[in-house]
Amino acid sequence: MSNDNATSTSTSTNININTGASNRQVRLAKRPEGAATRDNWQFTTEAVPEPGDGGVLVKTLSLSLDPAMRGWMNEGKSYIAPVEIGAVMRAGGVGVVAASRHAGFAVGDVVYGTLGVQEYALVPADQVQRSGLVKVDLGLGSITQWLNVLGMPGMTGYFGLMDIGEPKPGETVVVSGAAGAVGQTVGQLARIKGCRAVGIAGGQAKCDWVVNELGFDACIDYKAGPSAVREGLKAHCPKGIDIYFDNVGGEILDAALARLARHARIIICGAISQYNNANSAPAQGPKNYLSLLVNRARMQGMVVFDYAGRYPEAIAEMSAYLKDGRMKSREDVVEGIENFPEALNRLFSGQNFGKLVLQVAAH
Amino acid sequence: MSNDNATSTSTSTNININTGASNRQVRLAKRPEGAATRDNWQFTTEAVPEPGDGGVLVKTLSLSLDPAMRGWMNEGKSYIAPVEIGAVMRAGGVGVVAASRHAGFAVGDVVYGTLGVQEYALVPADQVQRSGLVKVDLGLGSITQWLNVLGMPGMTGYFGLMDIGEPKPGETVVVSGAAGAVGQTVGQLARIKGCRAVGIAGGQAKCDWVVNELGFDACIDYKAGPSAVREGLKAHCPKGIDIYFDNVGGEILDAALARLARHARIIICGAISQYNNANSAPAQGPKNYLSLLVNRARMQGMVVFDYAGRYPEAIAEMSAYLKDGRMKSREDVVEGIENFPEALNRLFSGQNFGKLVLQVAAH
Repeated sequence: MSNDNATSTSTSTNININTGASNRQVRLAKRPEGAATRDNWQFTTEAVPEPGDGGVLVKTLSLSLDPAMRGWMNEGKSYIAPVEIGAVMRAGGVGVVAASRHAGFAVGDVVYGTLGVQEYALVPADQVQRSGLVKVDLGLGSITQWLNVLGMPGMTGYFGLMDIGEPKPGETVVVSGAAGAVGQTVGQLARIKGCRAVGIAGGQAKCDWVVNELGFDACIDYKAGPSAVREGLKAHCPKGIDIYFDNVGGEILDAALARLARHARIIICGAISQYNNANSAPAQGPKNYLSLLVNRARMQGMVVFDYAGRYPEAIAEMSAYLKDGRMKSREDVVEGIENFPEALNRLFSGQNFGKLVLQVAAH
Repeated sequence: MSNDNATSTSTSTNININTGASNRQVRLAKRPEGAATRDNWQFTTEAVPEPGDGGVLVKTLSLSLDPAMRGWMNEGKSYIAPVEIGAVMRAGGVGVVAASRHAGFAVGDVVYGTLGVQEYALVPADQVQRSGLVKVDLGLGSITQWLNVLGMPGMTGYFGLMDIGEPKPGETVVVSGAAGAVGQTVGQLARIKGCRAVGIAGGQAKCDWVVNELGFDACIDYKAGPSAVREGLKAHCPKGIDIYFDNVGGEILDAALARLARHARIIICGAISQYNNANSAPAQGPKNYLSLLVNRARMQGMVVFDYAGRYPEAIAEMSAYLKDGRMKSREDVVEGIENFPEALNRLFSGQNFGKLVLQVAAH
């Protein structure tokens, strides 16, 4: 890589990589049966690549660790292609442009994109748009907030609640995984829109935080006992559930179905309780689904990417809430790319407290 | 009952009941576990009652036998109150006014209402509207058609498909219970609206009728083998299912979920495969429900009574289709109120071929 190349093209090339820098990567070694372990991953080290004409080299700062990643490890068709064996694990993240031969990006720009679990991501010209590489305005929120309320989880919560849930003031909104990235957005946004917000989370500490810090009306600790969710929903949703935002599936989805109000809307965003058995056993079907009939209710799936064209409107609205204090965020940051396997599993054991982030390098 | 009463009120009283006529009735003796048997029913005979001021006495002609009736026999909250132990079994039907002290009804009027499984139904003044007693125009269709395409099943199919399914020309509509009352309406209406119609029914005879007589594009015999539905849907829905109208639940719902097209709509109208175990075991949950997420699809329940205000528009449209031959109907008529218990069970064994009707008396 030389500055000669830079001056020979119409785009700017800027280089601040030390010669001989290496790029540590985490690749999918084999598909997991059940929960992923270290055996499913391969650690590789390569030379830092150079961007071709129109390409961008991004130094990874922080990666978003999300439940959906477990699904990407499975073979078979889903809403997105599976990660190939031997490929760098897919991950969205925030990085800083380390070299650019693309007119739209300059060295030092902070960007969001599908960087993958690696220290440096080379984004070729034809993928700059496809991978959704976008500049990030740190004036609107911190790097970790850009992976949380202003990032995919926030967008998921925003469009799921607003577009599918269609909340009306006075309605009761229940969200599972309430202390997680999507859940904290949904509950706070529901409150802002004039709804009652009831969370479901694992453990008293998370529940206390959801109520005391985020301002939910109530939060149910699903670990408190086998009938905790059922009884909690009964106590906290006396008029039934108008909107249930489901991140978990399984028994909790069934408990929510059993408490639906008439004309309720269920947003199917994920099913974290079922992901680790996706390859070996089918998901647990919601046996109370006939509540949809009795209550003239609907259950609808959503994939956040469909709303990409409208992210700017949601980001503008949410960053205003962050600034005026109506919305708070919490991230759970794990440092070091070498800790990726264990960090990811924290999601499925419910160990993370707030949006889970893997910090690969400091800004 | 005397004519003196008639002249003393502002409404007309007309009597054509022989003195001493009896009213045979079928009452719910005890709630069934699993399939209902004769033990669940009590046959009683009473004197034919006389209508009070503003009331109407209806002589039952034909009753609609529907899968939903099994649900009404269970204890517990549903979209409608359960039938009480000892009460006449609820049933909708067509009858003829035998005596009236209501200004809106005259002897000889043919009416539709919730008559119950009995030879004579007394509809008191305050229930004339509540039970939805309406005059039936036999110029628009026969008595059995008024229990089928122009009745509750037809209304269910019409509003489920049109309002929840929102069919667009060229889309693929799949309906289970295709030879049944709701199914035949849905498939034929889908064709009229420019969709491909694929039925699922039990047995080759029903499938042949659905395709050859009703004009469905294809019909899958679910009894043809354990993978018949899965393979049939694959063969007949090469671009996936845009609308699935579900009357049966269970494995067939799961097979349909596995073949959804993007942005598909599922109408949850019933779950006949699950009704007989409703008291003893929970319904089988659709384990492929995460297909809703992958395909950004929705699954919505419907109860036909919600559309009562719009029945006239649907009846007008459907009767035109019956007259111009674009829509056909088939009824399976069992004669004799004494045969009610066995007749009802034909629904759950799939023995009925067409809309099941119990003829209590000839017109």
